[in-house]
Amino acid sequence: MRIDLNSDMGEGFGPWEMGDDEAMLDIVTSANIACGWHAGDPIIMHDTSALAKDRGVTIGAHPGFNDLWGFGRRVIVGHTMSELEKQVAYQIGALQACAALAGHRVTYVKPHGALGNMSNDNDDVAMAIGRAIKGVDRDLVYMVMPGQATERAAQALGLAIAREVFADRTYDDRGNLTSRKVEGAVIHDAAYAAERVVRMVQDRRITTVSGKTIPVEIDTICVHGDNPAAVAMARAVRTALEGAGVTIAPFTVA
Amino acid sequence: MRIDLNSDMGEGFGPWEMGDDEAMLDIVTSANIACGWHAGDPIIMHDTSALAKDRGVTIGAHPGFNDLWGFGRRVIVGHTMSELEKQVAYQIGALQACAALAGHRVTYVKPHGALGNMSNDNDDVAMAIGRAIKGVDRDLVYMVMPGQATERAAQALGLAIAREVFADRTYDDRGNLTSRKVEGAVIHDAAYAAERVVRMVQDRRITTVSGKTIPVEIDTICVHGDNPAAVAMARAVRTALEGAGVTIAPFTVA
Amino acid sequence: MRIDLNSDMGEGFGPWEMGDDEAMLDIVTSANIACGWHAGDPIIMHDTSALAKDRGVTIGAHPGFNDLWGFGRRVIVGHTMSELEKQVAYQIGALQACAALAGHRVTYVKPHGALGNMSNDNDDVAMAIGRAIKGVDRDLVYMVMPGQATERAAQALGLAIAREVFADRTYDDRGNLTSRKVEGAVIHDAAYAAERVVRMVQDRRITTVSGKTIPVEIDTICVHGDNPAAVAMARAVRTALEGAGVTIAPFTVA
Amino acid sequence: MRIDLNSDMGEGFGPWEMGDDEAMLDIVTSANIACGWHAGDPIIMHDTSALAKDRGVTIGAHPGFNDLWGFGRRVIVGHTMSELEKQVAYQIGALQACAALAGHRVTYVKPHGALGNMSNDNDDVAMAIGRAIKGVDRDLVYMVMPGQATERAAQALGLAIAREVFADRTYDDRGNLTSRKVEGAVIHDAAYAAERVVRMVQDRRITTVSGKTIPVEIDTICVHGDNPAAVAMARAVRTALEGAGVTIAPFTVA
Repeated sequence: MRIDLNSDMGEGFGPWEMGDDEAMLDIVTSANIACGWHAGDPIIMHDTSALAKDRGVTIGAHPGFNDLWGFGRRVIVGHTMSELEKQVAYQIGALQACAALAGHRVTYVKPHGALGNMSNDNDDVAMAIGRAIKGVDRDLVYMVMPGQATERAAQALGLAIAREVFADRTYDDRGNLTSRKVEGAVIHDAAYAAERVVRMVQDRRITTVSGKTIPVEIDTICVHGDNPAAVAMARAVRTALEGAGVTIAPFTVA
Repeated sequence: MRIDLNSDMGEGFGPWEMGDDEAMLDIVTSANIACGWHAGDPIIMHDTSALAKDRGVTIGAHPGFNDLWGFGRRVIVGHTMSELEKQVAYQIGALQACAALAGHRVTYVKPHGALGNMSNDNDDVAMAIGRAIKGVDRDLVYMVMPGQATERAAQALGLAIAREVFADRTYDDRGNLTSRKVEGAVIHDAAYAAERVVRMVQDRRITTVSGKTIPVEIDTICVHGDNPAAVAMARAVRTALEGAGVTIAPFTVA
Repeated sequence: MRIDLNSDMGEGFGPWEMGDDEAMLDIVTSANIACGWHAGDPIIMHDTSALAKDRGVTIGAHPGFNDLWGFGRRVIVGHTMSELEKQVAYQIGALQACAALAGHRVTYVKPHGALGNMSNDNDDVAMAIGRAIKGVDRDLVYMVMPGQATERAAQALGLAIAREVFADRTYDDRGNLTSRKVEGAVIHDAAYAAERVVRMVQDRRITTVSGKTIPVEIDTICVHGDNPAAVAMARAVRTALEGAGVTIAPFTVA
Repeated sequence: MRIDLNSDMGEGFGPWEMGDDEAMLDIVTSANIACGWHAGDPIIMHDTSALAKDRGVTIGAHPGFNDLWGFGRRVIVGHTMSELEKQVAYQIGALQACAALAGHRVTYVKPHGALGNMSNDNDDVAMAIGRAIKGVDRDLVYMVMPGQATERAAQALGLAIAREVFADRTYDDRGNLTSRKVEGAVIHDAAYAAERVVRMVQDRRITTVSGKTIPVEIDTICVHGDNPAAVAMARAVRTALEGAGVTIAPFTVA
């Protein structure tokens, strides 16, 4: 059995830092790199790509809304699907070029924040992102949530997919993430998160908050590195998976 | 004899427009497209690429300083050469992706505004831009000023070049543009500009403000489309060249 | 009888222009000046204030969402009311300072675009804007839509109000603007708009699209100057009002 | 004897934090608050003003170049003095409004980063900033470097001044800061810095790197809070001053 671990990275901006990318690059096998719209800048994008290359970590574009101040976490209402498509293409291309300069290559795309949430709930948004991916490079993998709009879009467009589950989030009965506004939606206990991930990977099932189980294929686990506790949880998840005999490796090779 | 005509395009932003791109696309054979830093946005970049594709016009990236408010005309002091390189790469990649979505392909790079001026005066800047071009795609053409730092950098890096002269600017004895601050640096008489361009192309020489002539190879002529008078001058230049038996065609085929 | 005419102004940004402010300053008596968030910059804000001062035109702050690219016309979801309040305060203060430098004084506030629409539909948003106005300077007038959330908020907070109707927009039966998405929501016939405005001012009533009439107090008429047709309509409105014996004058004196 | 301690604050942006403002507010008596151009946003500006009010700390506007990415540390070449003046006014006004909302009042202005450096070297820049201050509110204090262009400008304009020395920087023989590029320009030893500040305050003299002494009036000492070592140094400076019988108090009362 083999699984990928992915994490958001390169989320500083100019003089400001966020998260412990150095630590996370020793834990994960895929790095979702911000493209300068919700975070990141060409220097950070290049340097994170170079570091990832150095550690053998696969990189993906992590496009978001054009809202640095809001870190891409706010929905901006009023874009047409065609406009969203062009915005996502812009960000993918920008990272491809920064990565090329660093001798690395972008292999997948995972939408960020409010755009990411919309993409799993809304088939039009998921398709717009998919068309951007396909238009820029049809070999790019679309990182999707199994059973949600992103997976449907990738399949409709004939794009390769990597199916993702989250280490620190609970699921509702549709197989989507429970809203962060709901008590208990975010898991803070590293040991519990690690054990839960191992079970999901071994059983190929997610268990929802109501106790229902949903069969899923899992290619990658999302972990976080924003703060020391998150890094510790990510490490616990990796250790538990390895302890269970699961090989940690990129879902795709650059 | 054959020559390319190039012009800056896609220099609107959101609700704001600049220049008459539609008119210019019937005059020129190469479009320098702003990459969202001094002007332009993903929608404009895509749509300008699509229009250019439709008219058979070659497109190039027109990267500048990250200064939308100043339209890339102000020098921002304090970037390392490595930082400039990453900034230029970012912009090239962003346009490549928007162009790909529009079914077109970026074939050259021409630095804009204050960055463009620096690149002809300063070998380090010209090399940083050249390294960005080469790092992103070594088949991209570097549009340079003959005899200046950009031409030297392109040659040192083994990049293909397109040598450019300006229809509406006078030259100093080093073969560089006369500063805009100097009286008469910008030519406003369309007939005179047209006649002068024909002479430059036929003689393979530029005549400086002191009357000196400098032999140059010329691949492309820069014309402008910011206002109706500029569009009229661009048209006069094209008509005069055609009248003199010069074929107007892209310097390179997409 | 006396009425104010107001128009949005100073909506360029850096090298980009929008509308014919010079022409509009001869037509209107109040100028809603963009504060650098959806349009405008300190240079434009100062210079528009100076021009208004020169022509005896009253000025107001025209705060919007922090979305230059979208011209403040897109809703950004996810601000708390407290955050909106601080954003509006920031923009009012910025204009007050630019106006002070120009020897003029801000006398009112009118929210722009998507923020303006929200403020008439949503009491919380209208109150947040009102608290910002009151917190910055309790003598500032809140420009409101009669019968809508903005008027209620101004009254609840004890702020002075200027009640506004639109020359080129139709009304629904709640007395709010008909959505731009509805056929006929925007009036393009200058003569009809002018006649309609005179009737509204004389009758102190608006007529809705269904034919219902709603009594309203009117202190100011909103006209536009984005394009030559808009300027012509604004001029027609002024001429018609003067022809009907209405005095055109600021609703408040700086 | 009595002296003010000032520090830069509110230098986060959106989700990003910088420095330990809470700790510094217990050490200093004046807070230089970023105005949203090199750092800060309306939320941070308001909340920092509220915290300062709560701790009895005076606040000042800390305007900089419009370069968030570069944190205002890069010179942007090509502004006229009139443009700089309007930019500084904008930022002062924005903070005044955010502070008013928090129940506090801006009492001084200190230019930031590259703009700050220019203002001490260049009389035109120092005057442009001074005219902005005077135009917005002639009662605002101009925080200046004694003997430099800012002090000359404040005196020429009749503005109240607060003369500042730096706890962690060495001086050249003109009484200006030694360039950061020079070895030893920044003092890292907290004990040494503290002892040196006490001497400067007691002797009313600065000692330059060549050993020369220059008599100066000192109203305020600049300390930093960017990192734990800086906070420790600031605390050491305060403790040493109090130990020497110096009262730590704002140079002006809000």
